[in-house]
Amino acid sequence: MENTVIRERFKKLRQAMKDNGVNATLFPTADYHDSEYVADYFKVRAYFSNFTGSNGTLFVTENESALWTDGRYFLQAESELAGTEIKLMRMGERDVPKLEEYLKGCLKEGDTLGFDGRCVTASYGETLEEAVNACKAKLRYDIDFASMVFENRPELPVHDLYLVEEAYSGASFEEKLSVLRKELDEKDADAFVLSKLDDIMWLTNLRGSDIACNPVALSYLFITPERTLFFVQEEEVTDAVRAYAKEHEIFLVDYESFFEFLLESADTQEIKNEIKKGLFFDKASVSYTLYQMLKRFEEHAGIPVINGKNPTTFLKAVKNETELRHTRETYLKDSAVLTEFLYYVKTNAGKEEMSEISLAKKLDSMRAAQEGFIELSFPTISGFGANGAIVHYEPTEKTNAKVEGTGFYLVDSGATYKGGTTDVTRTLAIGEVTQEMKEHFTKTLVGMLRLADAKFLEGCTGRNLDILARSALWQSGIDYKHGTGHGVGYMLNVHEGPQNIRYQSAAHDPFEAEFKAGMLVSDEPGVYITGSHGVRIENILEVVADEKNAYGQFLRFKHLTYVPIDLDAVDTQYMEEKDIQLLNAYHQKVYELIAPRIQDEAVKEWLKKATENVK
Amino acid sequence: MENTVIRERFKKLRQAMKDNGVNATLFPTADYHDSEYVADYFKVRAYFSNFTGSNGTLFVTENESALWTDGRYFLQAESELAGTEIKLMRMGERDVPKLEEYLKGCLKEGDTLGFDGRCVTASYGETLEEAVNACKAKLRYDIDFASMVFENRPELPVHDLYLVEEAYSGASFEEKLSVLRKELDEKDADAFVLSKLDDIMWLTNLRGSDIACNPVALSYLFITPERTLFFVQEEEVTDAVRAYAKEHEIFLVDYESFFEFLLESADTQEIKNEIKKGLFFDKASVSYTLYQMLKRFEEHAGIPVINGKNPTTFLKAVKNETELRHTRETYLKDSAVLTEFLYYVKTNAGKEEMSEISLAKKLDSMRAAQEGFIELSFPTISGFGANGAIVHYEPTEKTNAKVEGTGFYLVDSGATYKGGTTDVTRTLAIGEVTQEMKEHFTKTLVGMLRLADAKFLEGCTGRNLDILARSALWQSGIDYKHGTGHGVGYMLNVHEGPQNIRYQSAAHDPFEAEFKAGMLVSDEPGVYITGSHGVRIENILEVVADEKNAYGQFLRFKHLTYVPIDLDAVDTQYMEEKDIQLLNAYHQKVYELIAPRIQDEAVKEWLKKATENVK
Repeated sequence: MENTVIRERFKKLRQAMKDNGVNATLFPTADYHDSEYVADYFKVRAYFSNFTGSNGTLFVTENESALWTDGRYFLQAESELAGTEIKLMRMGERDVPKLEEYLKGCLKEGDTLGFDGRCVTASYGETLEEAVNACKAKLRYDIDFASMVFENRPELPVHDLYLVEEAYSGASFEEKLSVLRKELDEKDADAFVLSKLDDIMWLTNLRGSDIACNPVALSYLFITPERTLFFVQEEEVTDAVRAYAKEHEIFLVDYESFFEFLLESADTQEIKNEIKKGLFFDKASVSYTLYQMLKRFEEHAGIPVINGKNPTTFLKAVKNETELRHTRETYLKDSAVLTEFLYYVKTNAGKEEMSEISLAKKLDSMRAAQEGFIELSFPTISGFGANGAIVHYEPTEKTNAKVEGTGFYLVDSGATYKGGTTDVTRTLAIGEVTQEMKEHFTKTLVGMLRLADAKFLEGCTGRNLDILARSALWQSGIDYKHGTGHGVGYMLNVHEGPQNIRYQSAAHDPFEAEFKAGMLVSDEPGVYITGSHGVRIENILEVVADEKNAYGQFLRFKHLTYVPIDLDAVDTQYMEEKDIQLLNAYHQKVYELIAPRIQDEAVKEWLKKATENVK
Repeated sequence: MENTVIRERFKKLRQAMKDNGVNATLFPTADYHDSEYVADYFKVRAYFSNFTGSNGTLFVTENESALWTDGRYFLQAESELAGTEIKLMRMGERDVPKLEEYLKGCLKEGDTLGFDGRCVTASYGETLEEAVNACKAKLRYDIDFASMVFENRPELPVHDLYLVEEAYSGASFEEKLSVLRKELDEKDADAFVLSKLDDIMWLTNLRGSDIACNPVALSYLFITPERTLFFVQEEEVTDAVRAYAKEHEIFLVDYESFFEFLLESADTQEIKNEIKKGLFFDKASVSYTLYQMLKRFEEHAGIPVINGKNPTTFLKAVKNETELRHTRETYLKDSAVLTEFLYYVKTNAGKEEMSEISLAKKLDSMRAAQEGFIELSFPTISGFGANGAIVHYEPTEKTNAKVEGTGFYLVDSGATYKGGTTDVTRTLAIGEVTQEMKEHFTKTLVGMLRLADAKFLEGCTGRNLDILARSALWQSGIDYKHGTGHGVGYMLNVHEGPQNIRYQSAAHDPFEAEFKAGMLVSDEPGVYITGSHGVRIENILEVVADEKNAYGQFLRFKHLTYVPIDLDAVDTQYMEEKDIQLLNAYHQKVYELIAPRIQDEAVKEWLKKATENVK
């Protein structure tokens, strides 16, 4: 049956395209800051296509349309696109061209590709530019069709900003700014433009709530030798934030005037007189529109615009002592909650009715009841049986499995509290699991423990260490198709760079950061057997300084997460003596640190058993 | 006391500089092909400076001179430079400028730096270019002062070329050429210039003896769509080689006419008409002079000159079945010789007089007596006690230590045979060694065994695997300041790329090659305690295909080297159960494979005990 709603929307879109002389357009899934989640205001692709997955790009010309999405969403996209004219392009499959290649077959000489360049990364914009040039077509990046034909479009998200007091940030805005200025100076710059939201929040010691699970506000920052301009929606500025901004000489400017400001300041003397050396930016974290604006700025203002790695990203990654102190405490608090939840699942599975969704809700509400809880750090992954084998699984009413009988229950969850952001995965055996499942579980566990036990020289990156987590699985011919670890924010995004643990560099982010004491990183190997079961065990580690001698500075990891490992799924025949020692030592610390935080004696007793030594 | 010989040589050199309008010159330690060892003809730096170390660059102006060398040679250089005007520049020490920085303080506007660009790499030539430009000085790279003032200069080495029959090469020149042409085609090229000697030898199935320990001939190769021009000294061409060249349509041209040929062919129609696409070369393996010639060629001939990784280096690295078969056999043969040698040392130390030099001579002559022996693959490293802690140690009459009392004896050696090139290191306990020495030995051994036992996905490089060899040492706060592994040639150079095993990429060679089945790589961790003892244990590994499944193609290593590990230095308290299994399994194979090759019953009996299971 035809989807007439989509037909009507396409009709209006194509009329707007015609009115604007545009032959083809595209709608990616992104906001102006390439955020991990997009607010409703930015769900333009879903509006036009009916496809609601978290990844997809819609491409529309006068007479055809297609949508690119990845393997996680093929089934969902087929169903949601049914009844529309939109062709599904299954990314990664043989003979499926990339959008930029497909484009070349659609555009004729003199045609125009028009889109909203604020929602496209600088580098993808350049890819489109190349494709358009190859067709001798034209490109316009200043057309927001959604603003013309998206009926009842939701408003931009508006939520109050709030402060992180120095007792929690450990460094004032002025202290951070002064370090940043030194870094800029080394890059021959004295001005800086920043559109990466978590970096802006870190630097200003502010937080917001405009993006789901990310405590950030839509904003831009423009720093000159004399001023800090903070572009943010006026409605988000509370009295306290206004007073804070005044005290710290942060000038508040309206979010929507940012591009206008850039255009104007390139042609007026005021800003130009202030900047003596150059304006620094990171091409990897600006939109195509901002990139074009900066090129224009350079030309008009005659001020060099210098591309390089955001220094704020590196400064933010190395947590200071105050941040570390709060983080350690927050992880203990969060570990205790998860321990109580695991107790509930392990002791009631098979007795009480429970489902993936009911368990996720229970865990989420247990966290929400904690003092200092702000929000979940990502939607809880709660998967049983075959669903546990889907790496980015989030239960829906359609897929919601009952947790009963036998199988692995995998729960990956976390929250942002006043004092830190957590992320932890545990896999529980429900009923008696098979020998193969125990083998997968134990080898995953061994990988997690061995990586966490690494001692290594400064200069090492995640590419050097990744094999410690993988080798027990690789020896059995098993791999997991995701990275082993990501950086973790402090009262910020649960995924942050620049450090990570992977064995190959990712095409979209080939940079390898060296580990430094004070960084946080996840350690999360797994096994995923499609249609059967999934295992993932994830602790967050703190990088700490170890001995320094003639060979150099050694580093190690320290666990931040202290949650029991389900011994029902452990078979020590797959462990070396050293692995067993590591597990027992870890469990002893879990009991020591977590038991005093548990009120319920039954849980405490269970924890005692759950952390007993194995042989 | 003044070194009057050097004074006289400097006088003549400076006169020649003046006659040629040159204000400054430099003499690196290199031939025209950046070979690992240089023939006497190229020992120009030693002639002018009296310094004979294997690494050093002499810089001379009208009124000053300085010599740069590294930490291995500070003492030797001090002594050999005594009585000359030459200032010693200790590389790596604080406040010691690099030559290119020092240069800037010497050159005035309008001055000329003149040197022989054939002995300077393309990239270092560019560094010099920059320094010269910064001074507004001029650069000439066509001046060979040695040809003017080096009295009784040795001749260019001239040794017969010889053939590697197809029973040994496994692929004819034509087969290799046809694969190469396909690779060139993918790089949009149809011509190729090659000055990397081992690549030339591999491609042509020829060998030479112009460089010590490297079975290569001084030569260049120029391949057009229709012809292969092999530039080599006429005197090296035997009748058999001439017949072979004729049969395979390899045109022999005189070595010394190569640059002239390049100059001329850029301006004549013949070559230009043949090349339709482009001339491929690898900037990383051509001299500065050749690089300049190629730029000139591009300009004059109007043919694109394309820089990229030598495809021959990659093709050569993956050994074919014939090469592997001979290599495996050759390693067994070589292992048996080394086993006999170790027996001799272990059973006679303390009874018979033996020194580092006498042992090296004994081992070298044992290898030389083998069928198919061609030459040593590098000068034997034979170090006892504190000398074993010097990584690149080669005993001299001055340093020659007696092997007696207690200590570690480290022997790193190998040879090229008809059928392969070997490299192996063993460390032997002489007398009762200390507990600390046993710990160092055992942890080195564990690293060697664990790396050799790795199973990993295709796509991995040495940076992913290095930590397997290092982590047992890193856990004790010990590191070795050298790579863990290098590629190994087949009847060619013992060090060859592109694969290697390091945890950080080397500044001079940042490329990381993925492992492929058929590659050979060394596995050689170590411990070096200055003034006390050194341990290194080195096996050569073959990369082999393991299972291929939904996760990808797995690879593993197989030992090629089968030589006992000295159990007198092993303490199993430093080993995991798995490490012990690996050692015992290895030793069992050593006995199985090597015992049948040993004639002497006493040695066989010793080997039985030397390879007994440990607990």
